[in-house]
Amino acid sequence: MSSAAFDAVELIRLKRDGGRLPDAGIDWLIDAYTQGAVTDEQMAAMAMAIFFRGLEPDELSRWTNAMIASGERMSFASLSRPTVDKHSTGGVGDKITLPLAPLVAACGAAVPQLSGRGLGHTGGTLDKLEAIPGWRAALSNEEMLAQLEEVGAVICAAGSGLAPADKKLYALRDVTGTVESIPMISASIMSKKIAEGTQSLVLDVKTGAGAFMKRLEDSQALARTMVEIGKAAGVNTVALITAMDTPLGRTAGNGLEVAESVEVLAGGGPSDVRELTLALATEMLACAGIDADPAQVLDSGKAMDVWKAMIRAQGGDPDAPLPVATHTEVVTAETDGYLTKLDAMAVGLAAWRLGAGRATQGDPVQAAAGVTWHAGIGDPITAGQPLFTLHTDTPERFGRALQAIAGAAEIGASPVASSPIVLERIS
Amino acid sequence: MSSAAFDAVELIRLKRDGGRLPDAGIDWLIDAYTQGAVTDEQMAAMAMAIFFRGLEPDELSRWTNAMIASGERMSFASLSRPTVDKHSTGGVGDKITLPLAPLVAACGAAVPQLSGRGLGHTGGTLDKLEAIPGWRAALSNEEMLAQLEEVGAVICAAGSGLAPADKKLYALRDVTGTVESIPMISASIMSKKIAEGTQSLVLDVKTGAGAFMKRLEDSQALARTMVEIGKAAGVNTVALITAMDTPLGRTAGNGLEVAESVEVLAGGGPSDVRELTLALATEMLACAGIDADPAQVLDSGKAMDVWKAMIRAQGGDPDAPLPVATHTEVVTAETDGYLTKLDAMAVGLAAWRLGAGRATQGDPVQAAAGVTWHAGIGDPITAGQPLFTLHTDTPERFGRALQAIAGAAEIGASPVASSPIVLERIS
Repeated sequence: MSSAAFDAVELIRLKRDGGRLPDAGIDWLIDAYTQGAVTDEQMAAMAMAIFFRGLEPDELSRWTNAMIASGERMSFASLSRPTVDKHSTGGVGDKITLPLAPLVAACGAAVPQLSGRGLGHTGGTLDKLEAIPGWRAALSNEEMLAQLEEVGAVICAAGSGLAPADKKLYALRDVTGTVESIPMISASIMSKKIAEGTQSLVLDVKTGAGAFMKRLEDSQALARTMVEIGKAAGVNTVALITAMDTPLGRTAGNGLEVAESVEVLAGGGPSDVRELTLALATEMLACAGIDADPAQVLDSGKAMDVWKAMIRAQGGDPDAPLPVATHTEVVTAETDGYLTKLDAMAVGLAAWRLGAGRATQGDPVQAAAGVTWHAGIGDPITAGQPLFTLHTDTPERFGRALQAIAGAAEIGASPVASSPIVLERIS
Repeated sequence: MSSAAFDAVELIRLKRDGGRLPDAGIDWLIDAYTQGAVTDEQMAAMAMAIFFRGLEPDELSRWTNAMIASGERMSFASLSRPTVDKHSTGGVGDKITLPLAPLVAACGAAVPQLSGRGLGHTGGTLDKLEAIPGWRAALSNEEMLAQLEEVGAVICAAGSGLAPADKKLYALRDVTGTVESIPMISASIMSKKIAEGTQSLVLDVKTGAGAFMKRLEDSQALARTMVEIGKAAGVNTVALITAMDTPLGRTAGNGLEVAESVEVLAGGGPSDVRELTLALATEMLACAGIDADPAQVLDSGKAMDVWKAMIRAQGGDPDAPLPVATHTEVVTAETDGYLTKLDAMAVGLAAWRLGAGRATQGDPVQAAAGVTWHAGIGDPITAGQPLFTLHTDTPERFGRALQAIAGAAEIGASPVASSPIVLERIS
């Protein structure tokens, strides 16, 4: 950190008027904000100015580095395996991390997935794994390193020591209407990922109605920005832009998604989940310089072996039955035809209202709550057949969940082809 | 105030994305901010969003009204005289309020000048009058009303009960780089002036290098915006755009400006100060519906009588000698020629550095400190003649003041005509 004193108001005005923040000024600002010398109201004004004016690529790299420097930086240099990480910007039914991490580990990489909990309509990876009896998210750095060396994959909670400036700034942006800024989203994600110390990183940037970024051009800009930051920091970074109009797989909800992931690890499961898992695994292996065929490894059962070892290493019983909801409600089709649309946002909202997600940080989630859909895009539908099953332990939640799911499925007279999942690769 | 609950983040996002704030949302926001339910960081983000997106005319009127509603509202309805007020956006050597208020009162109006203290390179009216031995700025509402009825003019400190939302918001804008917003400047000025209860208002909007607004188009926009707000609130409002490239008169500094004002009240004084005083008096009298010739009243000595009564009513001795600085330093001309430029900002900065102004709210100011200039634009100059006299009680200040004043005067080979003072009238 630079010890040069800058004036916060001058820096805000500079950015407000379209200027570039000086490198030492960025270092000072992030450090002073973390320490409390720059106030929340000053940082809120700066965040809004950045919303309007953006950050130039090298300015954003410096900003990201300053956020990394606000906390500890991990290193995986002691591992014998190459490290490669994946980050998804979040989508409905997105359980890809669960089969992907053990699959890539089974191919020879070390996969450190430091994850978060869900907030809003998309679930969190840790919430999903906590549906497994006994499994615990919190590991010490030593436990994590040992598990990466021995098992190859770890999915655990990110320590609070990583990029504390980001933690503080994210909470501020959340209450000041400044979340939707591509440079600040990029810096937030990448500061944590770079601080983790991974050598390579594959980004799954979602686009569409069920994603945070609804428009393809915004998702492309976010992907390009994050890839630039990663490369500038010496992390081998690639992004896939993937579709999130339709929810992934056939389930949304914590335990439901674990079960579906296990199906994929067993060589089955929904074709879109398998397809995206393999596409991301291919990118991760290429980044890590590992020559392996992930489809073959998946079908060989080796990924399932790593999954079980990974769950056991964190106290979970991979063979224990998953919790089942005490109450279910089935929504049936009203007409014959073909499924032409399945609205990811509506499905995600219904799962959230059933108890799978939380409204406020710290709320508990239900392990068994969620939504199962019984048809995919293009499938023929007969009037009266089940379209959705809603699961919850608190049946008073059905009313608002049914409201959310009404109209989520559209049935047309002619079949439509399902759209591709991977839309673009950005490197 | 509406009791409807709004979400601060939703309102910030609405403005950020270019929308119009709903009327009840504006009322809620200002009230909740004044009460502390909307936080400083949220209001800072909103202020920056308004900096970029602006406020529509009726949105701004509602915003201003909500700020007025945050505090008490005065009324001059009990007075037998029509009330008319003047507000200047501030310039170097701008002592116009001092001769103007007694002049307009001598013509039959009641002139309530609720004023502030200076911060930065332009002095505050209260600071100037406090150079007069015994004079006090603080009056109760009852004292103010009685003085307006009996004397016709009062210049005193604005009570803290007027538009407290503005007071809080102004302090926030000052530390968050969001001062320079025409709608927010307009709402700040007009909320206080409207809350004061004046029937008519004449605005002196400065433009040029020594003004807050450097560009004519910004000054025009500010003037138009304030006139619109005033009219919408039922206040008869007119604005003059006046030049502030060259400082007004021949002095900048508290006691020095009082002495110059007394010269004008005696029928003399610098021609530009007399000209602007009469121009503003003409507008104020027209607004107040009073048919009088201010030049004749000034030359008759009646304005001087009101001045003395006004000073005495507030404990001051108008005949006592003004404080004189213990140290002076003279800057002389280096070449023969004509004075072609006198930089208002440089003169204001020098006066400030000599002790006439304050760096931080609450700092004391020197009554006798300041700058006198001995020539006006177009005057012939002889090498070696005095250009400036610097005055201070703390001679260690001369060094930085001399740095500020160096280059403030430009001497050319041919005379230039002095520019007009009143550039435009906006009603």
